[in-house]
Amino acid sequence: MTRVALLLAYLGSAFCGSQYQVGVRTVQSELERALAILARAPVAAVFAGRTDSGVHARGQVVHLDWPGEIEDAERFAWSLNGILPDDLAVFEAQPVPADFHARFTASSRTYAYRILNHPQRCPLARETHYFVSRPLDINAMVSATAGLTGSHDFAAFRGSNSDRLTTTCQVLHCQLFNLGEGVLEFWIEANHFVYNMVRIVVGTLVEIGLRKRSPTALAEALERGDRRLAGATAPPWGLTLESIDYPPAYNLFTSRRGSFPQE
Amino acid sequence: MTRVALLLAYLGSAFCGSQYQVGVRTVQSELERALAILARAPVAAVFAGRTDSGVHARGQVVHLDWPGEIEDAERFAWSLNGILPDDLAVFEAQPVPADFHARFTASSRTYAYRILNHPQRCPLARETHYFVSRPLDINAMVSATAGLTGSHDFAAFRGSNSDRLTTTCQVLHCQLFNLGEGVLEFWIEANHFVYNMVRIVVGTLVEIGLRKRSPTALAEALERGDRRLAGATAPPWGLTLESIDYPPAYNLFTSRRGSFPQE
Repeated sequence: MTRVALLLAYLGSAFCGSQYQVGVRTVQSELERALAILARAPVAAVFAGRTDSGVHARGQVVHLDWPGEIEDAERFAWSLNGILPDDLAVFEAQPVPADFHARFTASSRTYAYRILNHPQRCPLARETHYFVSRPLDINAMVSATAGLTGSHDFAAFRGSNSDRLTTTCQVLHCQLFNLGEGVLEFWIEANHFVYNMVRIVVGTLVEIGLRKRSPTALAEALERGDRRLAGATAPPWGLTLESIDYPPAYNLFTSRRGSFPQE
Repeated sequence: MTRVALLLAYLGSAFCGSQYQVGVRTVQSELERALAILARAPVAAVFAGRTDSGVHARGQVVHLDWPGEIEDAERFAWSLNGILPDDLAVFEAQPVPADFHARFTASSRTYAYRILNHPQRCPLARETHYFVSRPLDINAMVSATAGLTGSHDFAAFRGSNSDRLTTTCQVLHCQLFNLGEGVLEFWIEANHFVYNMVRIVVGTLVEIGLRKRSPTALAEALERGDRRLAGATAPPWGLTLESIDYPPAYNLFTSRRGSFPQE
């Protein structure tokens, strides 16, 4: 038996999220279906992080215990990709020590949220960008973003059906990029995230940008821990799980997915 | 009557090209259908350039004669976008002088061709990037690209059902960008293009990158004008019409679409 880590990429549009659910199409069910065909036996995949219905991933990580040897990891990934549907692929596969756990070994996660702020929509951004037609005050959004870095209680930025007990997250790196032509990207890396956290932070930033809330609204919501002080939950299709970091000792993956843009 | 220029963006995947054809879904037929609904009369759209089935556009330009005044160009674009399908949109509309012609006034066109060169496919690049799994010699491709700038006879790079008499094009700017993570972008700006030119140039570059042809193959094909010396035609979904330039006197569009990437 070999423990294997997979770097997964998927377009979330046609998936009901990452985790297995009875009767609907999820990333886990499609992946485990392909693994079972290849292994001729059931193989369970453990995901590093859950993504909601419609959310994309460029750097999701899973681990699994393969019944047998993996002689050529590239060939193994290629075989899986021949079975997987068009909107899901293994970008890289790597055998890992038996103590590696996709979720518990992870040291941080990085998400990007993409916005198109332009008077008219763009079909090429339709599946990956949240379209905001009214002009955003980007400076106000950037200054609101500054207060997020560090350790905070994100109770005000938690979706209502969260099951996590602790709401304290350490934001390691966080920045709003203005890439021109109306394209904004909000990147955030944290040790972990509470349910819907990035989408509620972005929803609050957009309301600050639209001047529905003051630039200090985000800091106030953080401090007071009151969900009503934060904005609406931004739509799922703007969000992409870009990468998951592991301790360097695991030397995981040669492909470095989803790093913060260079300004 | 008001002459109007439209900046169009579309995802080419579900279109049988830009130009009207009987019985199939084209960009022109969808656009003219929306214009007719809004005008309650037929309105013809003149396209700056033809794009093939499957080719995308971020900066296609059309002109049309609108039966009436355009008081608010942004509102006009918004109304059209409410009728147009999801994969086609007017990014900007602008009234222009009666002597403006989308095709004949244009001074240059810019195309980008996107490649994913990685051992495994990526679902997020599926509709917009040509997937090449074997490693490409990027240096050889970059050096072959260097010879393209300037005025050349592109007879060797012309698709077989071309109807153009002249095959001489002036390439104003041309560069292959290595954007990391296996993503390559080939950008080219020319006064005009012969049929399938970008896709055949890219097909030749890829064969040079795979070492099926020598790095000088592109220059030889250019010089000898023999289609057999050039490579296969690269697939349409990697290609995007990024922008069309007009003389500055027309002061066209505030949105500057598709400029060459910054290295």
